[in-house]
Amino acid sequence: MFTRPHLLGIEPLHPLEITALLDRAQHYAEGARAGIRPEPVLAGLTQVNMFFENSTRTQASFEIAGKRLGADVMSMAMQASSLTKGETLIDTALTLNAMRPDLLVVRHPHAGAVNLLAEKVTCAVLNAGDGRHEHPTQALLDALTIRRAKGRLHRLTVAICGDIAHSRVARSNLILLGKMENRVRLVGPPTLMPPEAAALGVEVTDDMAAGLKDADVVMMLRLQRERMDGAFIPSEREYYHRFGLDAAKLAHAKPDAIVMHPGPMNRGVEIDGVLADDINRSVIQEQVEMGVAVRMAAMDLLAAARREAASI
Amino acid sequence: MFTRPHLLGIEPLHPLEITALLDRAQHYAEGARAGIRPEPVLAGLTQVNMFFENSTRTQASFEIAGKRLGADVMSMAMQASSLTKGETLIDTALTLNAMRPDLLVVRHPHAGAVNLLAEKVTCAVLNAGDGRHEHPTQALLDALTIRRAKGRLHRLTVAICGDIAHSRVARSNLILLGKMENRVRLVGPPTLMPPEAAALGVEVTDDMAAGLKDADVVMMLRLQRERMDGAFIPSEREYYHRFGLDAAKLAHAKPDAIVMHPGPMNRGVEIDGVLADDINRSVIQEQVEMGVAVRMAAMDLLAAARREAASI
Amino acid sequence: MFTRPHLLGIEPLHPLEITALLDRAQHYAEGARAGIRPEPVLAGLTQVNMFFENSTRTQASFEIAGKRLGADVMSMAMQASSLTKGETLIDTALTLNAMRPDLLVVRHPHAGAVNLLAEKVTCAVLNAGDGRHEHPTQALLDALTIRRAKGRLHRLTVAICGDIAHSRVARSNLILLGKMENRVRLVGPPTLMPPEAAALGVEVTDDMAAGLKDADVVMMLRLQRERMDGAFIPSEREYYHRFGLDAAKLAHAKPDAIVMHPGPMNRGVEIDGVLADDINRSVIQEQVEMGVAVRMAAMDLLAAARREAASI
Repeated sequence: MFTRPHLLGIEPLHPLEITALLDRAQHYAEGARAGIRPEPVLAGLTQVNMFFENSTRTQASFEIAGKRLGADVMSMAMQASSLTKGETLIDTALTLNAMRPDLLVVRHPHAGAVNLLAEKVTCAVLNAGDGRHEHPTQALLDALTIRRAKGRLHRLTVAICGDIAHSRVARSNLILLGKMENRVRLVGPPTLMPPEAAALGVEVTDDMAAGLKDADVVMMLRLQRERMDGAFIPSEREYYHRFGLDAAKLAHAKPDAIVMHPGPMNRGVEIDGVLADDINRSVIQEQVEMGVAVRMAAMDLLAAARREAASI
Repeated sequence: MFTRPHLLGIEPLHPLEITALLDRAQHYAEGARAGIRPEPVLAGLTQVNMFFENSTRTQASFEIAGKRLGADVMSMAMQASSLTKGETLIDTALTLNAMRPDLLVVRHPHAGAVNLLAEKVTCAVLNAGDGRHEHPTQALLDALTIRRAKGRLHRLTVAICGDIAHSRVARSNLILLGKMENRVRLVGPPTLMPPEAAALGVEVTDDMAAGLKDADVVMMLRLQRERMDGAFIPSEREYYHRFGLDAAKLAHAKPDAIVMHPGPMNRGVEIDGVLADDINRSVIQEQVEMGVAVRMAAMDLLAAARREAASI
Repeated sequence: MFTRPHLLGIEPLHPLEITALLDRAQHYAEGARAGIRPEPVLAGLTQVNMFFENSTRTQASFEIAGKRLGADVMSMAMQASSLTKGETLIDTALTLNAMRPDLLVVRHPHAGAVNLLAEKVTCAVLNAGDGRHEHPTQALLDALTIRRAKGRLHRLTVAICGDIAHSRVARSNLILLGKMENRVRLVGPPTLMPPEAAALGVEVTDDMAAGLKDADVVMMLRLQRERMDGAFIPSEREYYHRFGLDAAKLAHAKPDAIVMHPGPMNRGVEIDGVLADDINRSVIQEQVEMGVAVRMAAMDLLAAARREAASI
């Protein structure tokens, strides 16, 4: 059962809650494939998307998810917002909260901003990415994609490769995969490895061959140049040579290993374009598909938990 | 009864029409608090929001209001519009009108632009703020908030404080409160007082103590720096010292006086942050909540008046 | 019957398909005028608008059309999209496609981009304008407007005037009007005439008097300065004198000739403002109205064709 008021990160979730979310998402994913229109479980509810960082992909996914379940969805361009008139983040949130939304989906460039906001409002808050902190729905959609491809979500070897340091995707995945008792390896240049990596109890390497050896899942990350403040910016050609995934490097993984990428991809930098499109290995499109299902499930369960709490 | 084709300002409204609007809004506000889904009285109708000035807050309020009542809502980014291709405001409006919307919500930087537009189109037009002219739904939501807090909307002493000169909010409130037979005082620096203030038949002062004396309602305004063209721009510290609302200045008002602000607030400039959050005095969040209810009521009554007119 | 998977241009359409589309659009146009709410034939379907070029007018028309038929409509600001993070157009399209939309409305500055995209996705694609290639819904709405005004869509003399070279509107209209066996004349300065004009089998002239002689329809085009890369940019005054439509030039056409313009208009450049507003001659507003009806019809028929194909 899932009874939380918010979805702020993977960190606070119990493995049973993760499973409940994935099961519900699986239900929605199958329905969509079968062309079955889902029950409008969010009808009459107001979903507000507050994206303080642009993300066409994630915002579209949340918007489609909400509309498919019958919610009234409103996406606010926060750059053009009252924040530019001197209002604080908290005032903006309190103002929106006074309009009585039911679900608030927030992306913010600062780690912790979404948690702070959740303390101030009375509606359910979903974290759509906060700084380098968490991006829980991404980890959940990755988990669902893995579970569907591998038939299970435990005792798998997962190599997370690339720009670990700037990635909330890596962080949320690391937590989720650990909770479900998988073996995680972080692979990337030392300059893109977070200082605390060694203390995380996972294997860390800068050698793709060693990192991918016998892996069930190879999860590539995007090189987040926009988060690198002048420090280390590798040349794309050199980076691709050492860390870009191609058929040769993938040969170190298990023969049936799947290839993942959260998108948007830099083809020829993080991953070979042909490999990215190889439907026998790449599940990149399915990740996107599962993203909508996971967001439907998360909003469905959060709304149900609120109804439950209100009726007690 | 409310039988007007548009809601362009408070000026043309009869007190009974104001009361009808507030009564309907009160109905929607109570329903929302009780978690009752309103009748979809705008189902099948198209509401278009044309904001030629950015306003996350007001646009969100109108959008939520329309969607809650079942309207198809479309918000147009007018900066990116055909106006940049050389089309006139009137042509843009006529084009939209030809798409047969039912409700057109317009904010425009020039006073009178919304009235001009209303003459050209066949749908109901709601003024969401035009230059320094009017902002009728703001005055109505303020009135509803006052009526709920004070139990009546007449024979109250209301102090409107701050940047009166640049404020359509002040103007619409002044008209509405006058129509309902309240005593209004304008308080602010002479440089932010409109030249015609003396002729309005209200008390004008630049002394907060005198202006707030025995007031039932203290309505603070936002310092609209973006509307001050180089003229007088006070230092924030000095402004706060003389005109910013804090507990000491509020002590001149009645012990149960309520504190209002249309938002977005500049904390520490127009108002002390602690006072703004004091739920025993501040009704600032309730103003936002009533904003949605007032806009639902206005669109409901306008649509009903059109149906009535069409059936005759 | 209309059984195509996409609406990419007028070029591939059979005259009977054009007639089927116009008949359905006529049905929706009449319903709207009678205040009849259409059947929600797109309920449960997701329509995504991807506009890589700004167009308030066309995007609003598609959005209103989809919402009137019950679709979940999502309009994406593609400037702010992942494309700026280095993702390719195809990856953006594949990502959206994985979210399982049903209808994808695309405008793109490059000719052929929409066709390329249609090959990659599994949903129905509607071309809302691609470079100088095609703009099929504009040609269809023009055709419907002509058919309503003239009572037929064949054996008419149509003068298309102005900036032919940069106009996909002209191109799609030329194809459609040719398929329906009308006589088309292209009128404009040689510098704004496409090199292939002479080979199109239509009359070409730079003399408005000769071009408009006995015309049933005078279709003015917008001067697309934003598409003229430094080459020939005429002075507005000179252009208006020679090619701008006014009462004197219109006198060469048939006495009951109608005046059209796809908008947005440059009054006093392409057309006299008084003539544009003359409801006895100008059908410019009706073109916009028919635009919504044509887009409803196109999405209705595409969705029906997909359902049909899926059930076989």
